[in-house]
Amino acid sequence: MKSTFGKNLTVALFGESHGPAIGAVIDGLAPGIPLDPAHIRRQLDLRRAGANAALSTARQEADEFEILSGWFNEHTTGTPLTILIRNQQTRSGDYAKTKDLLRPGHADYTAYAKYGGWQDYRGGGHFSGRLTAPIVAAGAICEQILAAHGITLGTHLAECAGIADAPLPADETALKAAIAKVNAKPFAVLDDAAGEKMQQAILAAKSELDSVGGILETAVVGMPPGIGEPFFNSVESVLAHLIFSVPAVKGVEFGAGFGFAQMRGSEANDPFRMAGERIVTQSNNNGGVNGGISNGMPIVFRTVIKPTPSIYQPQQTVDISRHEDATLQIQGRHDPAIIHRARPVIDAVVALGLVDLFCEAYGTGWQANI
Amino acid sequence: MKSTFGKNLTVALFGESHGPAIGAVIDGLAPGIPLDPAHIRRQLDLRRAGANAALSTARQEADEFEILSGWFNEHTTGTPLTILIRNQQTRSGDYAKTKDLLRPGHADYTAYAKYGGWQDYRGGGHFSGRLTAPIVAAGAICEQILAAHGITLGTHLAECAGIADAPLPADETALKAAIAKVNAKPFAVLDDAAGEKMQQAILAAKSELDSVGGILETAVVGMPPGIGEPFFNSVESVLAHLIFSVPAVKGVEFGAGFGFAQMRGSEANDPFRMAGERIVTQSNNNGGVNGGISNGMPIVFRTVIKPTPSIYQPQQTVDISRHEDATLQIQGRHDPAIIHRARPVIDAVVALGLVDLFCEAYGTGWQANI
Amino acid sequence: MKSTFGKNLTVALFGESHGPAIGAVIDGLAPGIPLDPAHIRRQLDLRRAGANAALSTARQEADEFEILSGWFNEHTTGTPLTILIRNQQTRSGDYAKTKDLLRPGHADYTAYAKYGGWQDYRGGGHFSGRLTAPIVAAGAICEQILAAHGITLGTHLAECAGIADAPLPADETALKAAIAKVNAKPFAVLDDAAGEKMQQAILAAKSELDSVGGILETAVVGMPPGIGEPFFNSVESVLAHLIFSVPAVKGVEFGAGFGFAQMRGSEANDPFRMAGERIVTQSNNNGGVNGGISNGMPIVFRTVIKPTPSIYQPQQTVDISRHEDATLQIQGRHDPAIIHRARPVIDAVVALGLVDLFCEAYGTGWQANI
Amino acid sequence: MKSTFGKNLTVALFGESHGPAIGAVIDGLAPGIPLDPAHIRRQLDLRRAGANAALSTARQEADEFEILSGWFNEHTTGTPLTILIRNQQTRSGDYAKTKDLLRPGHADYTAYAKYGGWQDYRGGGHFSGRLTAPIVAAGAICEQILAAHGITLGTHLAECAGIADAPLPADETALKAAIAKVNAKPFAVLDDAAGEKMQQAILAAKSELDSVGGILETAVVGMPPGIGEPFFNSVESVLAHLIFSVPAVKGVEFGAGFGFAQMRGSEANDPFRMAGERIVTQSNNNGGVNGGISNGMPIVFRTVIKPTPSIYQPQQTVDISRHEDATLQIQGRHDPAIIHRARPVIDAVVALGLVDLFCEAYGTGWQANI
Repeated sequence: MKSTFGKNLTVALFGESHGPAIGAVIDGLAPGIPLDPAHIRRQLDLRRAGANAALSTARQEADEFEILSGWFNEHTTGTPLTILIRNQQTRSGDYAKTKDLLRPGHADYTAYAKYGGWQDYRGGGHFSGRLTAPIVAAGAICEQILAAHGITLGTHLAECAGIADAPLPADETALKAAIAKVNAKPFAVLDDAAGEKMQQAILAAKSELDSVGGILETAVVGMPPGIGEPFFNSVESVLAHLIFSVPAVKGVEFGAGFGFAQMRGSEANDPFRMAGERIVTQSNNNGGVNGGISNGMPIVFRTVIKPTPSIYQPQQTVDISRHEDATLQIQGRHDPAIIHRARPVIDAVVALGLVDLFCEAYGTGWQANI
Repeated sequence: MKSTFGKNLTVALFGESHGPAIGAVIDGLAPGIPLDPAHIRRQLDLRRAGANAALSTARQEADEFEILSGWFNEHTTGTPLTILIRNQQTRSGDYAKTKDLLRPGHADYTAYAKYGGWQDYRGGGHFSGRLTAPIVAAGAICEQILAAHGITLGTHLAECAGIADAPLPADETALKAAIAKVNAKPFAVLDDAAGEKMQQAILAAKSELDSVGGILETAVVGMPPGIGEPFFNSVESVLAHLIFSVPAVKGVEFGAGFGFAQMRGSEANDPFRMAGERIVTQSNNNGGVNGGISNGMPIVFRTVIKPTPSIYQPQQTVDISRHEDATLQIQGRHDPAIIHRARPVIDAVVALGLVDLFCEAYGTGWQANI
Repeated sequence: MKSTFGKNLTVALFGESHGPAIGAVIDGLAPGIPLDPAHIRRQLDLRRAGANAALSTARQEADEFEILSGWFNEHTTGTPLTILIRNQQTRSGDYAKTKDLLRPGHADYTAYAKYGGWQDYRGGGHFSGRLTAPIVAAGAICEQILAAHGITLGTHLAECAGIADAPLPADETALKAAIAKVNAKPFAVLDDAAGEKMQQAILAAKSELDSVGGILETAVVGMPPGIGEPFFNSVESVLAHLIFSVPAVKGVEFGAGFGFAQMRGSEANDPFRMAGERIVTQSNNNGGVNGGISNGMPIVFRTVIKPTPSIYQPQQTVDISRHEDATLQIQGRHDPAIIHRARPVIDAVVALGLVDLFCEAYGTGWQANI
Repeated sequence: MKSTFGKNLTVALFGESHGPAIGAVIDGLAPGIPLDPAHIRRQLDLRRAGANAALSTARQEADEFEILSGWFNEHTTGTPLTILIRNQQTRSGDYAKTKDLLRPGHADYTAYAKYGGWQDYRGGGHFSGRLTAPIVAAGAICEQILAAHGITLGTHLAECAGIADAPLPADETALKAAIAKVNAKPFAVLDDAAGEKMQQAILAAKSELDSVGGILETAVVGMPPGIGEPFFNSVESVLAHLIFSVPAVKGVEFGAGFGFAQMRGSEANDPFRMAGERIVTQSNNNGGVNGGISNGMPIVFRTVIKPTPSIYQPQQTVDISRHEDATLQIQGRHDPAIIHRARPVIDAVVALGLVDLFCEAYGTGWQANI
């Protein structure tokens, strides 16, 4: 598989940034799930260009989606559900002028090397961040399945342009409330003052023809223990696989993550204790996962998003048609930051990965036992 | 799939720490590959307990391996190659005494939750780090396949117990030499003085009945551009999937990794330039991967290894048979650090993942075009 | 996977007979393949209702297809190619009246049992033969890939309504010519007089409110030896898997097939001999496959197609809403025979399966080495 | 995947006829299944050479199996279960003499074409029927899982050397009893007089240095409706895939199979009716499968087994080292018929396929809900 993911719940992603349409076929949904299209719409809006106009690209796509199959009488049918989003605002001319100049930090050169020049280069083609729209739609379906099983998840901008948000609370009830709070915000921070500074920093970078990155932090609350498979299909393996599929992600750490390097075992281990009938850990350095399998504590991880590679400063590069050094002045419509738009994408892939793992243990039918 | 990985080259891993044997079936090797069993032996020795006696568990397994199939006239046959390693030094009595006391930081509780008590609990059973031995053997085969195509890889302890090794050189030729240098050492550091300090820190932790962790840094030199698949099977996705399968890994970052959070696009982007006939980048912040596909520069990533969870201090936990709080005093033979033993395991999974991706593009036959 | 097939070349099929659209995402095509949309069009026409108006359903779908992705500058891009066919001629009212009466021989009851009533029952929903249209389109692409490697295939009606066509010639050159001949005909017979009788028999059955079945015979000429995988992914396994996916197929036999039951080994074995530089067999009882792997002789197999289950006679059945016996008088537009329409579908799935197996050995890139 | 099958329950098959061992890794078993090793033993005995000494090869392998992993306290653990069978009676010298002479009807030439001469040619290597022993062992485990859910299956020799057995009864209760009866016999016929004639015909063929084939008929009783997936993973697709993996199989037909070619729809359709609370069909021409999904009636299918290709008569062939015509006089120990030995192999693959499909719908945990 290439642009297809999943074993029990399969997502086949298709489309190019400037082609007729993008979309996804989701195979493996249970029948009878009463999806709320408004939730799909809401997640797409969080992702789409234009939600925060000043912060984002000027390409204003409505991202209207059509469900082509697998949906009947306002419920899933159990057969493949297809989501189609037509591309509207394509201004391909922006790309034709500079098509031979490899954009640093983008997939232009690697796509050229892989596809020998046959790829649709316009706007990054199949490598465009635009392809995350159908992923968000598919993920929004899975988020509803998880929610019906008491599992909620959310992501905040833990850091952007060097400015830190307030930390997620350790306490599970407080954490769940914090997730609900950020999920309701277009710019996902716990501390709105920090969020304000981040947005100013993004605009500052924009005014300097530059871009910024940051760190997203995600929490999943309500996971039962025992989900995930040993070795090659651990929760961490499956989630990291999906998260690294998201454009601009360059690192993922669970729980204490890279902080473990300076800990001793006596600090790092999370002691178990009884909390009524339930077994919990006193700390959560392991981010809710032991031996690759969920332990019932919140799954917590951090994802680094690199600065948008499309910047308006002149950049050194190579002209691929002439095989000689060149200078690139990027055209088109680009974001000075994408971290706030990557937020619903991370939520989406996590939801996809978790539903796939639940189905591994409990079958497709698990989804609909609502 | 659960304990099975791969699409074109499949590894089915089996066994438990205290069962009769551990091993792996490797399906998808090309015929006619002249493997050197001495390289498998060498990598197993780097991984196995006892190579650095004072630093490691007292369990002294020879890890003698037998090739049960797929090997004829000193070459691969092209049919599944099976590696079997008998367990010898099992002292299961150590585990029976404390089998109901969940070891913090281990998979005891999660395996219990998943398997309902039917799992082989002795020494962690299928979740034991011992299962990495067949992975190392399988990886050693893939390393030879890559080497025959001019691709070499290696890993050093970038940091252990808070002590840093010298950095990997940026220059590709120097990097290749540095890899060769660390690959020849039992304790994989560039700076032997730093390595000496790390070993002292490990022994100090041991004497305090504690353990330490660290960060491994891996480089792959000689990759052609164009390897990897868009979106869900990017180089980063496939490698991260495998790396997070290795016990004790809690984070992975490619290139500048989490450092990207504080960079601007103008710093982060790696400008292209011609180097003779070849297209290279001037910096390698992206760690050899753009848009999920290799760009021909060294693939560089860092992996955090948490401190060994088995420590000899008393720990708070739960007795799973009584569902009540308890204190655990771990028995058995354990390592005060596993990071130096994790080194060949990371190399192994990277080799597996890369061969799988090469075969995706070029077929199984690619392996043998030596 | 459910409605998804393939490993190296993946086809994700979607849609329902009376939903907005049907289609397929084909992931794993090489870049740079100069597809001829006219060949896709031609194969769709062979499959579609209306080509032989009297013999087929009165539902007249144009089956106009749109390529949504993976196609740029008249060549494949190497990223997923999506084919979309909008449903036009849906008269769902025909089905609403009898929706609780299970149609014998159809998937109504089994879909109900599987999906608990949430399935789109109209016209068989996802189980409709209409879903073979995107399969034919995907297969038409693969037929062009095979043709560029000198491999041609075709199918004739070996038997319909008890009337036999002339046999395929044994000689390879004559066989290739015979395939070309039937491929050019709308009603695929070698002997047009037999074909005429078959069509009369179909019309006779129609006038008696009944339907007929038959046997398709397929040959693939030009296969190199050595394609297919041992045991579980033999040529026969992969092709049979796909062929049994086609609605109405109830049996598949390779070479002498069920005739082997009455042979002795001395008759059944195909002796080898040199034919110039090439190794051939003197007979082809094994249908071009030994030990699951192609031997370079024509791959020949026969597929039985059951009579169309939709007949206009009253039938005994069950009312699923009342759980009581009932009589069904089928409404809607149906074919008195589908065997002639199944012909391009069999060709399509064979082409898909063979390209998948070639890519297993030679990689995705094999496709474009034209 | 190549020698690996399954999605939810995966079987990785390994070994060569004259190598050190053969075996299989079964990944995806639920924990806590109380397997009876005596059933595995019994099925292996039905398959193995020597059970009917005069009818079979003189190679007398005990086929003693060892469970290397996944088995603890007399139950499955839920982690991969590995079965190992050491090869004992290898007389490889028989093969060295004629190794360049391609055996007609065998995989010698196709393996040579695929593996370029690197394959283990001795006794057919990985293509040997001997590899069906671990399949039988894996299947025996799945048969016990199905039996615990009230599903039983069995196979009889419907025809051998042109001699027919009595037909399977149509009535479900009588069918279940008939299956139990043949399962208890070493030579699986309903009519012992017919069985006696078959055995005489086999011996007659043997005395004439020849071999015979036949048809196996299999029935599965107790299937619930609703198992199987639409299109590409229908019950028929999955079972046929596996059945065609068994050496010597050249055709499979479900229910009326090739007989459908001469039926009309009014005969072919199986009318539904209520039988108490249950929906049944009055006839079972569709062999328990509609639209690829089980309908709750017995699954019935027939498999043709070609005559053993190893015969002691001189045969025309090619010397692969010289690329010239030659005459082969086969050495070694061979069966004049293998159909009676193929019987437990067919049962095994059917059990594997059905458990895989059940897990698709209900998860791995379904297996242990006993």
